[in-house]
Amino acid sequence: MSDIGTVETRFATIATPEAPFVFRSGETLEHLRIAYETYGELNADRSNAILLFHAFSGSQHAAGVNPEGPGNAFWTPECVPGWWDLYIGPGKALDTDLYYVICANYVGGCYGSTGPADINPATGERYGSSFPHITVSDIVRSQAMLLDHLGIDQLLAVVGPSTGGLSAVTFATTLPERVRLVIPIATGVKTTVLNRIILLEQILAIENDPCFRAGEYYGSGPPETGLGLARMISHKTFVHLDAIERRASKDVIQPEDRFSWYQAHDHVESYMLHQGKKFTDRFDANTYLRICEAWSRYDPVREGGAEDELDLFGRSREAGQQYLVFSIDEDYCFYPEEQAALVDLLKQASVPHLFLTVHSEKGHDSFLLEPELYTPHIQVMLRNASESAAV
Amino acid sequence: MSDIGTVETRFATIATPEAPFVFRSGETLEHLRIAYETYGELNADRSNAILLFHAFSGSQHAAGVNPEGPGNAFWTPECVPGWWDLYIGPGKALDTDLYYVICANYVGGCYGSTGPADINPATGERYGSSFPHITVSDIVRSQAMLLDHLGIDQLLAVVGPSTGGLSAVTFATTLPERVRLVIPIATGVKTTVLNRIILLEQILAIENDPCFRAGEYYGSGPPETGLGLARMISHKTFVHLDAIERRASKDVIQPEDRFSWYQAHDHVESYMLHQGKKFTDRFDANTYLRICEAWSRYDPVREGGAEDELDLFGRSREAGQQYLVFSIDEDYCFYPEEQAALVDLLKQASVPHLFLTVHSEKGHDSFLLEPELYTPHIQVMLRNASESAAV
Repeated sequence: MSDIGTVETRFATIATPEAPFVFRSGETLEHLRIAYETYGELNADRSNAILLFHAFSGSQHAAGVNPEGPGNAFWTPECVPGWWDLYIGPGKALDTDLYYVICANYVGGCYGSTGPADINPATGERYGSSFPHITVSDIVRSQAMLLDHLGIDQLLAVVGPSTGGLSAVTFATTLPERVRLVIPIATGVKTTVLNRIILLEQILAIENDPCFRAGEYYGSGPPETGLGLARMISHKTFVHLDAIERRASKDVIQPEDRFSWYQAHDHVESYMLHQGKKFTDRFDANTYLRICEAWSRYDPVREGGAEDELDLFGRSREAGQQYLVFSIDEDYCFYPEEQAALVDLLKQASVPHLFLTVHSEKGHDSFLLEPELYTPHIQVMLRNASESAAV
Repeated sequence: MSDIGTVETRFATIATPEAPFVFRSGETLEHLRIAYETYGELNADRSNAILLFHAFSGSQHAAGVNPEGPGNAFWTPECVPGWWDLYIGPGKALDTDLYYVICANYVGGCYGSTGPADINPATGERYGSSFPHITVSDIVRSQAMLLDHLGIDQLLAVVGPSTGGLSAVTFATTLPERVRLVIPIATGVKTTVLNRIILLEQILAIENDPCFRAGEYYGSGPPETGLGLARMISHKTFVHLDAIERRASKDVIQPEDRFSWYQAHDHVESYMLHQGKKFTDRFDANTYLRICEAWSRYDPVREGGAEDELDLFGRSREAGQQYLVFSIDEDYCFYPEEQAALVDLLKQASVPHLFLTVHSEKGHDSFLLEPELYTPHIQVMLRNASESAAV
């Protein structure tokens, strides 16, 4: 089904004991590798690269089929198809006949970039709780170092759906000369009260699991019930409730949906429990916590070292960037108001932009499932940005 | 501040070994007492009684000041003022110069009605997990038995805000001859997918706490972290997010808002944690779970033994009932669509009703805080119902 075929994850070393990576928190890593994939060919003048930021629980594997991944235990069959395969390939939104698409796993991730589940060479033990706290600007900076490694000075575009959009905006505003077109999809520019509350619930769900052991659970078994509950809490914001009901009606109530006292009794409960359970096989709780924290604390002004929003987005204007912003009308993860807030800031800073709302019954998930709603505008904007670059 | 003054909780025994209470589940209790309070005077022909159903975590103590409560450990200073004191008293919505107001703690509760934390006389041990599962119709039936005890055949009105509204509707439709006016406020008629998901999250938060021990925690200490998280999950639906932000800005970030790995860092997080923490002092997790389950499984048609909604609400029409239904425009606990669904059913069944939406910045909490939005209509409807009864 994929036009890309079988792909492999590659690795770039971006920190060594001689040149450690310094996080915003002040913590450092002496060994840091970034797992990434690329699709299409880099052109001769290196002007056709697009950097795609994955969402919360995504990976570097955006297109094609990757049976091996990074070769670790989190790479389950669910990970094998690329998460944005509908959008990447010949003739698709990110057209691999024209562009060179790069996607990398976040620093602190569990899909091959150095993360809490890895062995710290200095101790011979897993990093666990000693792995640094991460911020969106750390993610962005680590991926800019990957671009250095690949010999790419300026990107044609950054694309970021969902939490990936936070990275896209911070890339554009902290490294304004390195990108021409910015495409945030169903994302936010400032964490809302509801974001922070829901993230705190997820953090506590994991912290409250006795298996969590402050993050030192690799020898004893992961906090599966806590991570499963955390995933359930977020899942209801990803998928439209009507779609949950439709999907759930096909689910069977499982005998194992029984707890010490409570017995699940309807399809929606069973469906949600199943979502939580299958997620725990493919994700590391310590990574989950770090991304929760990075999102909860996200502030593009502070992370960009700007005076205020006008100063921040003034950089985009001065660098000649354009923005293409998408909202999804019934999105309960990043509400349409959040993209409208971003667009207001772009207006105030006189940054050229297009702003579209797609209408979908799928909720936030639309960004994964409905390429027909996004592709034409993405193609035109990429073509225009390519042509103006060539002039 | 209260016009009612100091009040006391009283108790009615409604089940004995000779006449046990049989729950919908088939389980039984040989000892069942109901804790209740009353305000105002019952008139000579016993026609001025109003039964008020409390919300999820409320109690029988609706008005006045009750320093003692049921005399158990859950009665903290937070419980001392009546939860609907702004609505009950001379000249208020439920005017105690005119009416006799009754409010009772739910069966399975922790404020004096027999519940899981009580000693089972048959074993000398706390009921714990052996306490029956409850449904809304069990709550209703136990309170109808309290009315028998008080010698009241027919109520002037049932009033139910929030989850209390489920009981009000089920009282009206299962005992149609026993009430004339039905006042559901910010409530629902059918559990939604979102209700059931959020309730499941709360149930799992408690089940996942190692202190829960399948409900047998009275000797070892309660599942405080799980119950606190459950309360946080629901609290965000009670209070408008803007109001949470306003309230939170006055909160101080507490040093104890630190977990094994995560450190809370903003006022909203601190406020939410504080809401969770203070709740655990005043509520029993086993009661909490039973009310979650009763709400999640609520189906007025099934609990009323009706063929369908038309059959169910046909009983209200035939008994000559009237409904006064209130919505709150920005309610994220029971959404306005849920009251609109109730009103649609009333229309289909030709039940006389008034339907009003109050506009509030407080969200669901408005029903506790803004008597001026509800009082005039409640007073007029009660007066009309009284007068038509007297004819």
